[in-house]
Amino acid sequence: MSQNQFDKKSQAWSALFSEPMSDLVKRYTSSVFFDKRLWQADITGSLAHAEMLAAQGIIAAEDHAAIQKGMAQIWGEIESGAFEWKLDLEDVHLNIEARLTQLVGDAGKRLHTGRSRNDQVATDVRLWLRSEIDLIGELLVDLQKSLVDVAEANAEVILPGFTHLQVAQPVSFGHHMLAYVEMFSRDAERFSEVRRRTNRLPLGSAALAGTSYPLNRERVAKTLAMDGVCQNSLDAVSDRDFAIEFTSAATLTMVHISRMSEELIIWMSQNFGFIKIADRFTTGSSIMPQKKNPDVPELARGKTGRVVGHLMGLITLMKGQPLAYNKDNQEDKEPLFDTVDTLKDTLRIFSEMIGGQMNAATGKKEGGISVNAEAMERAALKGYATATDLADYLVKKGLPFRDAHETVAHAVKAAQSHACDLSELPLTVLQGFHASIEKDVYECLSLRGSLNARNILGGTAPAQVRAQIARHRARLG
Amino acid sequence: MSQNQFDKKSQAWSALFSEPMSDLVKRYTSSVFFDKRLWQADITGSLAHAEMLAAQGIIAAEDHAAIQKGMAQIWGEIESGAFEWKLDLEDVHLNIEARLTQLVGDAGKRLHTGRSRNDQVATDVRLWLRSEIDLIGELLVDLQKSLVDVAEANAEVILPGFTHLQVAQPVSFGHHMLAYVEMFSRDAERFSEVRRRTNRLPLGSAALAGTSYPLNRERVAKTLAMDGVCQNSLDAVSDRDFAIEFTSAATLTMVHISRMSEELIIWMSQNFGFIKIADRFTTGSSIMPQKKNPDVPELARGKTGRVVGHLMGLITLMKGQPLAYNKDNQEDKEPLFDTVDTLKDTLRIFSEMIGGQMNAATGKKEGGISVNAEAMERAALKGYATATDLADYLVKKGLPFRDAHETVAHAVKAAQSHACDLSELPLTVLQGFHASIEKDVYECLSLRGSLNARNILGGTAPAQVRAQIARHRARLG
Amino acid sequence: MSQNQFDKKSQAWSALFSEPMSDLVKRYTSSVFFDKRLWQADITGSLAHAEMLAAQGIIAAEDHAAIQKGMAQIWGEIESGAFEWKLDLEDVHLNIEARLTQLVGDAGKRLHTGRSRNDQVATDVRLWLRSEIDLIGELLVDLQKSLVDVAEANAEVILPGFTHLQVAQPVSFGHHMLAYVEMFSRDAERFSEVRRRTNRLPLGSAALAGTSYPLNRERVAKTLAMDGVCQNSLDAVSDRDFAIEFTSAATLTMVHISRMSEELIIWMSQNFGFIKIADRFTTGSSIMPQKKNPDVPELARGKTGRVVGHLMGLITLMKGQPLAYNKDNQEDKEPLFDTVDTLKDTLRIFSEMIGGQMNAATGKKEGGISVNAEAMERAALKGYATATDLADYLVKKGLPFRDAHETVAHAVKAAQSHACDLSELPLTVLQGFHASIEKDVYECLSLRGSLNARNILGGTAPAQVRAQIARHRARLG
Amino acid sequence: MSQNQFDKKSQAWSALFSEPMSDLVKRYTSSVFFDKRLWQADITGSLAHAEMLAAQGIIAAEDHAAIQKGMAQIWGEIESGAFEWKLDLEDVHLNIEARLTQLVGDAGKRLHTGRSRNDQVATDVRLWLRSEIDLIGELLVDLQKSLVDVAEANAEVILPGFTHLQVAQPVSFGHHMLAYVEMFSRDAERFSEVRRRTNRLPLGSAALAGTSYPLNRERVAKTLAMDGVCQNSLDAVSDRDFAIEFTSAATLTMVHISRMSEELIIWMSQNFGFIKIADRFTTGSSIMPQKKNPDVPELARGKTGRVVGHLMGLITLMKGQPLAYNKDNQEDKEPLFDTVDTLKDTLRIFSEMIGGQMNAATGKKEGGISVNAEAMERAALKGYATATDLADYLVKKGLPFRDAHETVAHAVKAAQSHACDLSELPLTVLQGFHASIEKDVYECLSLRGSLNARNILGGTAPAQVRAQIARHRARLG
Repeated sequence: MSQNQFDKKSQAWSALFSEPMSDLVKRYTSSVFFDKRLWQADITGSLAHAEMLAAQGIIAAEDHAAIQKGMAQIWGEIESGAFEWKLDLEDVHLNIEARLTQLVGDAGKRLHTGRSRNDQVATDVRLWLRSEIDLIGELLVDLQKSLVDVAEANAEVILPGFTHLQVAQPVSFGHHMLAYVEMFSRDAERFSEVRRRTNRLPLGSAALAGTSYPLNRERVAKTLAMDGVCQNSLDAVSDRDFAIEFTSAATLTMVHISRMSEELIIWMSQNFGFIKIADRFTTGSSIMPQKKNPDVPELARGKTGRVVGHLMGLITLMKGQPLAYNKDNQEDKEPLFDTVDTLKDTLRIFSEMIGGQMNAATGKKEGGISVNAEAMERAALKGYATATDLADYLVKKGLPFRDAHETVAHAVKAAQSHACDLSELPLTVLQGFHASIEKDVYECLSLRGSLNARNILGGTAPAQVRAQIARHRARLG
Repeated sequence: MSQNQFDKKSQAWSALFSEPMSDLVKRYTSSVFFDKRLWQADITGSLAHAEMLAAQGIIAAEDHAAIQKGMAQIWGEIESGAFEWKLDLEDVHLNIEARLTQLVGDAGKRLHTGRSRNDQVATDVRLWLRSEIDLIGELLVDLQKSLVDVAEANAEVILPGFTHLQVAQPVSFGHHMLAYVEMFSRDAERFSEVRRRTNRLPLGSAALAGTSYPLNRERVAKTLAMDGVCQNSLDAVSDRDFAIEFTSAATLTMVHISRMSEELIIWMSQNFGFIKIADRFTTGSSIMPQKKNPDVPELARGKTGRVVGHLMGLITLMKGQPLAYNKDNQEDKEPLFDTVDTLKDTLRIFSEMIGGQMNAATGKKEGGISVNAEAMERAALKGYATATDLADYLVKKGLPFRDAHETVAHAVKAAQSHACDLSELPLTVLQGFHASIEKDVYECLSLRGSLNARNILGGTAPAQVRAQIARHRARLG
Repeated sequence: MSQNQFDKKSQAWSALFSEPMSDLVKRYTSSVFFDKRLWQADITGSLAHAEMLAAQGIIAAEDHAAIQKGMAQIWGEIESGAFEWKLDLEDVHLNIEARLTQLVGDAGKRLHTGRSRNDQVATDVRLWLRSEIDLIGELLVDLQKSLVDVAEANAEVILPGFTHLQVAQPVSFGHHMLAYVEMFSRDAERFSEVRRRTNRLPLGSAALAGTSYPLNRERVAKTLAMDGVCQNSLDAVSDRDFAIEFTSAATLTMVHISRMSEELIIWMSQNFGFIKIADRFTTGSSIMPQKKNPDVPELARGKTGRVVGHLMGLITLMKGQPLAYNKDNQEDKEPLFDTVDTLKDTLRIFSEMIGGQMNAATGKKEGGISVNAEAMERAALKGYATATDLADYLVKKGLPFRDAHETVAHAVKAAQSHACDLSELPLTVLQGFHASIEKDVYECLSLRGSLNARNILGGTAPAQVRAQIARHRARLG
Repeated sequence: MSQNQFDKKSQAWSALFSEPMSDLVKRYTSSVFFDKRLWQADITGSLAHAEMLAAQGIIAAEDHAAIQKGMAQIWGEIESGAFEWKLDLEDVHLNIEARLTQLVGDAGKRLHTGRSRNDQVATDVRLWLRSEIDLIGELLVDLQKSLVDVAEANAEVILPGFTHLQVAQPVSFGHHMLAYVEMFSRDAERFSEVRRRTNRLPLGSAALAGTSYPLNRERVAKTLAMDGVCQNSLDAVSDRDFAIEFTSAATLTMVHISRMSEELIIWMSQNFGFIKIADRFTTGSSIMPQKKNPDVPELARGKTGRVVGHLMGLITLMKGQPLAYNKDNQEDKEPLFDTVDTLKDTLRIFSEMIGGQMNAATGKKEGGISVNAEAMERAALKGYATATDLADYLVKKGLPFRDAHETVAHAVKAAQSHACDLSELPLTVLQGFHASIEKDVYECLSLRGSLNARNILGGTAPAQVRAQIARHRARLG
């Protein structure tokens, strides 16, 4: 009985199993080649469990010491790449536990007292995800700061604001950038809420029903800096809400990225020519020598599909599963891992593509998007962007808004037939549409006049944009 | 200029349009037949807007009074069914505004001052969704209470706890019910967070850029009891995060419902026979006279697909949309409406199916699920559910857990070959597996002994179940 | 025993049921308010069943005659709107059967011999979907014809072909239109394959196991013009592959529509100005008097989400369902119905928006998209669209392609620094990049020269475009 | 000009690019670490292209010979693992082309004449997918054969057929197996249709517009055994329908697998105990020594989510993409690759799990599922599975079906109150429900009588099952 049961894993699971797994089945059911990524969380969780077992007198102090020593060595082996991961040992948990037993003997065999892989893996994934959420939070701050920087530099730059991709009203390019800051700040809010629900401790739920050992779950939660203890053992081992919630939040972030990407791609098209991104975010063509393609925004837009797919995969996974743990749940990891990787890479790269890289010599960021203010303003002159301002002008002269709206439609029609802007119609012509129109109308028909007029909370006037920038800077630190 | 422009909607949109819409196009682009559902929110939002316009001196007090009077009449007309909804007027907003102008003339034409349908519809949907979230919150409380009631009545009932649908360990049926309470309480948490982000005011963003009128947006937010004001006009009119977030939260709730449904269906199958649900939640067969089918849980499981589909639809809708408002967004409403309806109906029906209906005469609930405790306990005796207890017993005798686990596997194999339970093996046979086994082993091999042993926070011991019930009762009020 | 059992449906399902359904449950489980749409298929299927029952001697000839007479009356009642649909009778099948029994007594009660609602509804949905697929096939032909018409009128019009939304090479606008013809022709192929698998007969499978009556299933299949008989009763009643397949084919069609919509929207944006669509496919703004928005393409792009959502919903529905029929399947109808409606409306409207409407007076189509050839050609001059042609020119002079590609990159760089097109560089400058360049290079640097050069099967040269148009015209009839 | 441009890839893309890519961007945009899997298709396609270039006189015979020689060496290098894949060279295409140029100089630089990576990658993926579809086709045949074998061995075994997971009518277990054969045969049909649309040649479309070289595309198609040539260059480079179609077909197959898995899991649950699967497809528990869990079916059910996710990801990817090629499309590969891997592994493992493995010594398959016929039959006796037969009996006695149905409901109620089966009610009691009942009723009330009675095409009578088996054997070869 003193040999290591793990040595026989490749032959049979336990005394109950009459034949070994085939290689195909092993490959199909094993998770070690992707879940080994959880090793830090696994060891950290095991150490907290062992510490508590010792404190509760469930294992001896020497066993605890042996486990600590063994785990320290394993940590080093994994970090250095010396650790040998074995497919036969199925998953990260058994690989580490088997090595521990090899190193420290019976103490290793006592580590699993009062726990099961069901609560262990749930704990590992939560610990791992918590730290990834923290990293994502930082990346979201970076991206928001990049956007705020660009907003500040372009608060006065006039962009044609679009609805339906038709020129609508002039807006500040800075204001447009800040729209994305709002989106990413909502994303950050959501991730922080997901973190709270992720950061709860399943350990102590054992296989599904709790355990007969006098564990102290609150102690483990405290050691691991978790916000609480899962209150129902059946739920604790089968719950994957946090994975779905997280992927859902990531999907929204990627949807925002896809919207920004779409705009960057349109703005870079020759007919717009509003912006450029640095060459290192573009690629060329193997056949067309002149091409410089916005690969990064396009790929990011495409990768939105990948994350949406993971969300749908996870939901499908959980739909209709009876309690408690089922093996289906093993399929939670790859989509979660890939979502985290995709999101982190995308945020990092967008942050730099928008805001540039720090030049250590100058202490300044360089190489962010470059803005062609002249092209933007030229475009803003195309679609009668100040027509609403003329309507508002007439309202101030006493017309009900609906009548003013209709009057201006006639004026626009006239301007179209002369192929000119409203501001290019002579005063007498304008007065033909309504007698109350006076010379000061040209002020409100100018792009800048229109821009400055929208000086209301949330509006596009540069004064408002600067107020928002100040608010964001205070918030983002 | 004094006529109502709306009268001409069916002929041409404004002076700019050279031809009327075809009927097919009208049907394709109009939303009035589904968005009229927003009428209360639309009027409420308009009244708050008008009140502020008057307070800011943008419209006259008489105009405000006229608008109030007109809206009161319209409210009555819609409630009574007398209001005539017109396809030609596209949507709920124009239908109401047109009627208002018909009723009160120029005052009606002044209502739209400083706003656009873009910020108006965003406000309406948020107001509507906020109140639906509040209803859903109440329904989630009801469902949790039903589950807690059943849990309390069945705290001592022994169910075979399953993992992989294989008998694992005995659990309290009450404990099993409380697992769902955990899920639905997380759902409630999520909805309350979504509510916070939903309850922000877009109004004042106008078409996309804010407006040149001196609106007081905070005043409107306060009138409408909203938690804040959207800080960027471009974002405010194009943001549909709240719709996706809400549907994502609803999806998780439906996933939980689908899991419970799966279990109810399995439990009702003749080979289980664990529970019955009242006849009014079942239907018969047109061909098989003996059938009584669990239609409600099956349909609920099926309706999970419907809600997941809406989530996928909304995500697809928003993916890659440039700022600001695009007509695509009109497609947000039907999935949102149907998600709300499906969720509310499902929660209501499950609450009653699980917990029963109030009998006014007795003041007690009747007709909830009925539990066949005897069938559950019989089933729990089938799968060596106390094998882990035997392993734990050996650990307490000094064996490392891994060795104990292996020893018990041999014991189970022996019991299988005798077609008996572990508790039916004679002591001498058990001692053959390990000499330390003594007579007291039979205590831990009993179902109830096993159940009571898991007396740890979150565990299945009835004492723990009762503690959780007390916590939930305090929380749910 | 002579009364109509259906009269008691509202009280209890059969003698086995001890209580009636609550109204909420009735509403939740009934399908009549959406499945009544299947009434024609239901009656048609019933008549074929009755005809066979009589032919096989299972029911008497008089019963058959009575059923025919009763069904003829019901058909008329439903068509005229006189038929009273009852929620209490759950679904279209029971509503019609109950009315039949009311009209013709015992003969009506004999109709259900040897069948179940499980095989009946599967038959109904297949019959209904088959005819919808035929309509969709016609609409796809119409849309392709509209595109071919536009292609023919614009075979010589030069559009800047984009990759990555960057100007790549000049293409014929007609060629671009034909790309969509390829997509929609693949869609038509797929629908015809789905039709084949849809058009198989489940009837005769009864509840799940077949029936003990000597039915002649092939006879029914022949009467209903079906392509075959489902060969396994369990599969026949539980199979919904055809619904998923259909929705998947519809999703691809909508994805194609979304791609075309995206292009139409971009092309209509003021900075492009490539095309216009007729006013009746656009709408205005409630605030901006100058707006004319491409609502139809935007909505169609948005409705892609709706259909994708239905696909996801149906897949979720079927995932993990045990055999045979489960009530979940009732949820197949609404997504299927809405998919059909959305697709048909969209195809119809696009066909007209692209190709125009028939003017009965002139016998010509009018009001399709109008093309601004001049704007397209101007845009094609912007992005060094003929750079590849210069590389090909150098290859013909003996350079390996890779070297030619690199040489041209240098030439483009020079042209960029002079802010001119490659064709505007003097010969001597061009020769500086490679000595082999001669005067004839300007031929290949012209847009039209580039276009005509791609005279290869599938290429953009107008000669090829015309050849494809001829092929499509022959194919589409 | 004689150096290899690829050597500089790591510095800058072409002369146009002013800075190299950052490592993060390289990692984000490169595809070589997943698309190198296409190497065989890439070389095969290149060789067919080169052969045609030589035949058309576009490159010299010596160049062709050099390319052949170089490619042969590269093939060997990749097979042996000696080939060095470089991230800097982005993708499989440039890696191979660069190595070719290194090996054979200018001939290598001539290979890319008249093509682009846009048409090259589309060709590669199609060639690769075609061969994977062929493998999947074989695996589907294997799985069907396994099911037919089990069906044959169990044609007479009685299983309770379920609807709504309630006992409905007795069915042959063989019949039940054949339901899945129907599903997988439909899957095979679909894959063969997808193959036809996949097996068309994009090559010759170049970047998007075709090429000015006199290529012979039909020749290349013939060399590559493709079914046709893509007829529109813009469509050819941007079309990913085949990827979505394939994944949609794979999704349906996985949905079928998920349904079978659900049944296997339920059937293995102790309360059913209908079947066992071999130990090598199960795993144990780290805590519960008695457990033997059906891991393979559970994982397969879970992996359905993975494939559904890929489908949704691919659809999201393509939604709203303007023509022609966009970088988003690079994201098509990983979901496609993983779908193929998942599907192939799953089919292979199910084939063996159901039908067993060939024992070379005996020439027989061993270790497939084992069927507990006795448990199945016992379960079939529980739910009044022959009630429909009693109704049919009464119909044959002259009752209309609806009246017979109602009569039997009363009989079932009586049997329930006596806790016995219908067949256990004395004749006099039965006659109390209808006087026409005679002694022969007990024949139709027996499970086997019921089974044999359903002797109709597609029905469950063993005679029908054997006829279907014969048909399948003939079809599957």
